[in-house]
Amino acid sequence: MKITVGVIGAGRIGQLHIDYLRKHPNVRIKWVSDLNCDKLKDWIEEQGIEKRTKNHQDVINDPEVDAIIICSPTDTHVDIIKLACEKGKHIFCEKPISLTLSESKEAVKCVEASGVKLQMGFNRRFDRNFAALQNVLAKRELGEIQSLRITSRDPEPPPIEYVKHSGGLFMDMSIHDFDMARYLMQSEVVEVYAKGQALVNPALKEIGDIDTAIVTLVFENQALCVIENCRRSVYGYDQRIEVLGDNGAISVGNENLNTLTYAKADGIKQDNPPFFFLERYQQAYADEMNAFIQAMIHDEAVACSIRDGLKAQEIAEKCKESLVTGLPIKIHS
Amino acid sequence: MKITVGVIGAGRIGQLHIDYLRKHPNVRIKWVSDLNCDKLKDWIEEQGIEKRTKNHQDVINDPEVDAIIICSPTDTHVDIIKLACEKGKHIFCEKPISLTLSESKEAVKCVEASGVKLQMGFNRRFDRNFAALQNVLAKRELGEIQSLRITSRDPEPPPIEYVKHSGGLFMDMSIHDFDMARYLMQSEVVEVYAKGQALVNPALKEIGDIDTAIVTLVFENQALCVIENCRRSVYGYDQRIEVLGDNGAISVGNENLNTLTYAKADGIKQDNPPFFFLERYQQAYADEMNAFIQAMIHDEAVACSIRDGLKAQEIAEKCKESLVTGLPIKIHS
Amino acid sequence: MKITVGVIGAGRIGQLHIDYLRKHPNVRIKWVSDLNCDKLKDWIEEQGIEKRTKNHQDVINDPEVDAIIICSPTDTHVDIIKLACEKGKHIFCEKPISLTLSESKEAVKCVEASGVKLQMGFNRRFDRNFAALQNVLAKRELGEIQSLRITSRDPEPPPIEYVKHSGGLFMDMSIHDFDMARYLMQSEVVEVYAKGQALVNPALKEIGDIDTAIVTLVFENQALCVIENCRRSVYGYDQRIEVLGDNGAISVGNENLNTLTYAKADGIKQDNPPFFFLERYQQAYADEMNAFIQAMIHDEAVACSIRDGLKAQEIAEKCKESLVTGLPIKIHS
Amino acid sequence: MKITVGVIGAGRIGQLHIDYLRKHPNVRIKWVSDLNCDKLKDWIEEQGIEKRTKNHQDVINDPEVDAIIICSPTDTHVDIIKLACEKGKHIFCEKPISLTLSESKEAVKCVEASGVKLQMGFNRRFDRNFAALQNVLAKRELGEIQSLRITSRDPEPPPIEYVKHSGGLFMDMSIHDFDMARYLMQSEVVEVYAKGQALVNPALKEIGDIDTAIVTLVFENQALCVIENCRRSVYGYDQRIEVLGDNGAISVGNENLNTLTYAKADGIKQDNPPFFFLERYQQAYADEMNAFIQAMIHDEAVACSIRDGLKAQEIAEKCKESLVTGLPIKIHS
Repeated sequence: MKITVGVIGAGRIGQLHIDYLRKHPNVRIKWVSDLNCDKLKDWIEEQGIEKRTKNHQDVINDPEVDAIIICSPTDTHVDIIKLACEKGKHIFCEKPISLTLSESKEAVKCVEASGVKLQMGFNRRFDRNFAALQNVLAKRELGEIQSLRITSRDPEPPPIEYVKHSGGLFMDMSIHDFDMARYLMQSEVVEVYAKGQALVNPALKEIGDIDTAIVTLVFENQALCVIENCRRSVYGYDQRIEVLGDNGAISVGNENLNTLTYAKADGIKQDNPPFFFLERYQQAYADEMNAFIQAMIHDEAVACSIRDGLKAQEIAEKCKESLVTGLPIKIHS
Repeated sequence: MKITVGVIGAGRIGQLHIDYLRKHPNVRIKWVSDLNCDKLKDWIEEQGIEKRTKNHQDVINDPEVDAIIICSPTDTHVDIIKLACEKGKHIFCEKPISLTLSESKEAVKCVEASGVKLQMGFNRRFDRNFAALQNVLAKRELGEIQSLRITSRDPEPPPIEYVKHSGGLFMDMSIHDFDMARYLMQSEVVEVYAKGQALVNPALKEIGDIDTAIVTLVFENQALCVIENCRRSVYGYDQRIEVLGDNGAISVGNENLNTLTYAKADGIKQDNPPFFFLERYQQAYADEMNAFIQAMIHDEAVACSIRDGLKAQEIAEKCKESLVTGLPIKIHS
Repeated sequence: MKITVGVIGAGRIGQLHIDYLRKHPNVRIKWVSDLNCDKLKDWIEEQGIEKRTKNHQDVINDPEVDAIIICSPTDTHVDIIKLACEKGKHIFCEKPISLTLSESKEAVKCVEASGVKLQMGFNRRFDRNFAALQNVLAKRELGEIQSLRITSRDPEPPPIEYVKHSGGLFMDMSIHDFDMARYLMQSEVVEVYAKGQALVNPALKEIGDIDTAIVTLVFENQALCVIENCRRSVYGYDQRIEVLGDNGAISVGNENLNTLTYAKADGIKQDNPPFFFLERYQQAYADEMNAFIQAMIHDEAVACSIRDGLKAQEIAEKCKESLVTGLPIKIHS
Repeated sequence: MKITVGVIGAGRIGQLHIDYLRKHPNVRIKWVSDLNCDKLKDWIEEQGIEKRTKNHQDVINDPEVDAIIICSPTDTHVDIIKLACEKGKHIFCEKPISLTLSESKEAVKCVEASGVKLQMGFNRRFDRNFAALQNVLAKRELGEIQSLRITSRDPEPPPIEYVKHSGGLFMDMSIHDFDMARYLMQSEVVEVYAKGQALVNPALKEIGDIDTAIVTLVFENQALCVIENCRRSVYGYDQRIEVLGDNGAISVGNENLNTLTYAKADGIKQDNPPFFFLERYQQAYADEMNAFIQAMIHDEAVACSIRDGLKAQEIAEKCKESLVTGLPIKIHS
C-alpha cells in the first residue's frame, strides 16, 4: 500500500522529512510546496518528487494526496490545517500549532470534527531512550512518581531575529519539555511556576525574552516536575531526564559522539554529545514519521494528537504569564 | 600544641566527632557532657576521656577547656553558645543554630561581640567532591554561572515523631543544600519559591510538613538554582550537584559502595551509593573537625561561620513561608 | 552515476547488504544469485531487483554488471573471485577469503594482476567508535604504543554443526580481531602465541576446536597485543578495545541498548549492549558498503584490500599452529 | 587486649604501617628498628614509640614483643623470619619473601614448624573492590569462570637503580597480580607464558628487564588468565580486573580522585585516578594490618599466608623463565 503525501515547507526540517519519506516503501511524495521551490528545483527533482508549487493549496486540492506534512512557518499552520480538514487530508504538523491558544483551539475543533488524523511533531517521544523510559513508567515499575526532572539545553542561542518571532523560550523551546512531561507522567499539569533570566544574552530582556529558566510543574496526581532550560550549553545538545518514584529513580543520559575514553596525564576525556538536534534525534525523526505512516495504513490513532499540541502550548502560555506576573499560575482542564 | 575540648551531647553525631578527635594528635578531649553520661560511662572511658557530666556548664566553666563541640539538641544551642562566648571558648556547632531567626540573630551577636571562633557543622563543604567543585567555581573556570542544581535525597524518611520536632523539611534537611548553594555560588539568595508535597507519607500533611520539594532560588548575581529534595530514595543517600556556566557544565555524582560492574543476561548492575549519611560523609566529618582544630591552632577564620548558619536558616524560613503562602518570597540582605 | 551490482549469496548477510544497497542513490541491484532464489522470489521482487539466478556465472557474465558482492559460503569465494577478475568486475567479499592460505594467495594474485578493486568485509573498521580510535592513533596522539587489548566475545556459541565447517575459532571469529589489531597498530604481526580451551562447550575438544582464547601478538614495531575471545558472553555482543601509549590510554566501550540507568533498592541497573552483531554493526555495514561504492565511483583504493584479508588469515593460521604445538610461532613477512 | 609490636624497617611503607598501628586501640608499638633510626628520632618520638634501634635483634629478643612487622629490604626478610620463628613472634611480612625460591621455601618450613602466624603484605586482597569481587566469585555467582583479566600499571617507572635490585618486573610488580589471580580464581596456576618488552625505557634491556608485559596463565581448573603490566600509565595508578563466567562478567574499575564530570566545548573530562599507590590502597593497607591484629587477638588463621607468598613468587620465577626461553612453562604443584 502506498500513501501519497505532499510536503508543505521545504526548509531544514522539511528536507529532513523528505529524505526519510522518499526511502519509505509505502510512501510516494507527489508534491513539495515552498515559496523557494524554484531555487530548490534541482534538489526536489533529485528526490524523485513529481511536482512543486509555491501554493500549498495545489497540494491540498490534489485528490491523489492522502496526507500533508506541515513544515512551513508557525503562522501558516492553522490555515493549512483547516483547509486540509475540509479536503479530508491527514496531517503531520510541526510544533507548535500556532502562537495563540484561541487559534489552536479552532484548529483542534476542525480536526476533531473532520475526523482526519493529525500527528504533532513531538519527535522526542520517539527517541528510543525516552520511549524506553515512558514504557517503564507506563508499566508502573517505579510505583508512584514523586518527581520528574527534565534538563533541556540548546548548544547555542539562535539569532535574536529568530527569537523575536519564536514566541519566546517557553513556546519555542520548552514546549517539547512540556509535552515530554505530560507524556511521561500521564497526568495533566494543574499549576506552573516559571522563573527565568536573560543571562547568556542580556539583550533578550529588551524583547521580553529569557534564555535560562527553571520551571516547576505540579501535576494532577500531585507529583512535581522541574524543567531546566538554557539556550546555551557549549558542550553540546543536552537532553536528559530523571524520575524518582517509590521503587527508585531512572535517569536517561545523553549519548556521546563515540564511546572513546581517553585517559591522559591531565585527566580522562570523552567526546561530547552531538551539537545539532537533527543529529541527536535523527532516528527519532524517522520513527515519528514512520509512526504517522503506519497510523494511516492501519487506520489507528496517532501517537501524539493535536490535543497534545494544545496542552503543551497552554503550559507554555501559563509559564509566560508566571514569568511576567512573578506568580504561580493554575491551569484548569 | 594541644587543644583541650569538651563535647556537649554524645549521641550519634557526638560520638562520631569524639571518634575522630581522640585520634587527633593536637587534641585532648577532657570532657563529655550528656544527660545519659552514666549509661555511656564505659564507652567514654574506653575513649580515654577524663571527665563526664550531665551539665554542660561544668565543661564550659573549666578553665582548661579551649573549645566546645555542640552536638546537643537544637533547642539547647543558643544558651550554650552564649555561655561559651562569655567564657571565651571556641565553638563548633551542629546545624541549625536554632529554630527561630530571632534567637539565632542573638547568638550571632554574642559570637561576633566576643571574638570566639564558631564553626557551623556544614560537613558537606568538606566533601572532597563538593570542595573540588567549589574550587573550580572559585577560580571561575566556568565563567559566569547560569544555573545550579542540587539533588539531595535521604534514603528513608525519619520517624514522624522526629519530624514533628525537626523544624520541617527545609530547616532539617534542605538547610544543608541552602548552605551548599551559597558556598558554591558565592552570592546571596534574594528570592525563593518552594513547592512541596507529602507524597511518600501523606500523614505529614497533618503536621504541616512535606517530604518532596522543588525549591527555586534566585541569587543576587541573577543566577538560578533549583534544589530537589525527597525524604526517600530507596537506592541510597543521593547527593549530587550540577552547575551550568559560560564554559560548560560540571556535575558531581555519588560514589557507589564499590566499583564493581556486573554484566549479566538481564542487564548491567552496580551496587548503590551508601545508604547512611555518616558513611557517605565519613571523611568530610573528619575534615571539618580538623579544619576547626587548625583554625584554632593557627588563629585563622573558620571555614563556615555562624553567619553562614544564619543565612541558611533564613532561606529555610522563607521557603516555609513560600510553601504556606504559595508565593515567591524576597530576601533582603 | 549508477553502479550496477549483483549480489552472490542471499543469506542473512547478503540480505543485509541488499537492504542497504537498494536505498543507495548510486546503486542499481540488477542480480541476486542464490541456490534458494526460488524460495526468495517474493522477497527479491519486493526489493525491486530485476533478475535472480542459481548460478553466479550469470551475474558475472552480465556485461552491465560493474561489481559483485560475495556473500556465499567461504568455499566458493576463490572461484568467484577468479571469475570476476577475468571479467573485470569489482568485488566486495565477505571474510575470510578462503580456509587455506595457498588458495587465498592465488586469489590475491588474480586480483592484483587484474586491477579490479576488491574490498574485504571487515565491517568493524567502519564502526564509528573503532574508526575514531584509529584516527586518533594514526595522528599519533598517544605517541608510541606499548600495548593493545581487544576483547571480542559472541553472545552465544553457534551450533556445533556450524563450528565444524567454520575453520575454527581463530579463522571464523578472531579473524576480525586480527584485522582490527593490524588496522589500529599500522604494523605487521611477527609472532603469535595462542592459548585456548573448550570451557563453554567441552564437546568442541572432540572436533579440535575451542571457545575461549587468549592470543598474544607481537608487532614489528615491538608493541604487544592481547586478544581475549569467548564464544559466549550472556550479557550481549561484547566488542571493546583498549590501547596504551606514551601519552595515555584510550578505551572504546560497548553501547548499550539505551541510556537508561535504573537505581533501585537492590542496585543500579542498565540495559545490556545489543545481543546480535547485525544490530551492533548495523551502521558499520552500511558505511563499509558505501565506502566500496564511493571507491568505485571515484576510482580510489578500497579501505581494506584482499591483502588485508590474507594477512588476517595468516595470523589465524599461525594461532591454530600455536594452539596445536603449544609454542609461540613467528610470522615472516 | 593489647598486642605489642615492633616495626623493622621505617621507610615509606614502614611509616605507613606505623601511622595506622599507633591509632589502633589494641596495639602498642614498642620498637622501631631501622639503620636510619637516629635521623628518624623526632618522628619516632612524635608517634609515641618507646624504643628505637639499628638492630632488629633487639626487637625480636624483647620478651614483651608479640609480633613484628617486616618492612626492611627484601634480602633481610628470610633471616628475620627465621629469628622471629625461633622466638615465637608473629610476623607481618612485606612481599616478596625473598628473591630465590629455595630461601623462601626454607622460610615457609620455619614458619610452619614454629606455629607462628605470618601474614604476607598482599594489600590488594584488602581493597574493598577486589574483596567484593572475590566475595561474589567465592559464592559462585558467575558459575564457572572462563577467563580473568588483570590490568596493572604503575604511573611511572622506578629509577633504574631500583629496578636493578628489584628482582625484575615479575618479581617486583606482577607478583601482586599473581597473588590476585590465585586469590580470585581459588585454583592453582599450572602453566605460564610471558611476553615482555622494554618499550618505555629501552635501557632496561641491558639489565635483562622489561617494562611492558602480557602474561597468560592457565589454571588447574582450566580457566585462562591474562595479566597486562606496564611500568608507566601517565594517567595514574591503574588497577583493574575483569572476569568472565557462565553467568556474565564482572569488571572492577579504578576510582578517580573525585566524582566531578566537566563538560566543556572540547569534551567531557574527569580527573584521573590517584597517581600514588599509597593513596589508592590507603584503606587496604589499614585493613590488612587490622586483619593481622585481629588474627592474633582471636587466634585465627591469617588472610594470606607465607605459602601464598611462595606461590606468587614461584609464578614470577616461571614467568621470568618463560620470558628468557620464549616458551610456555609448566608449574607442578
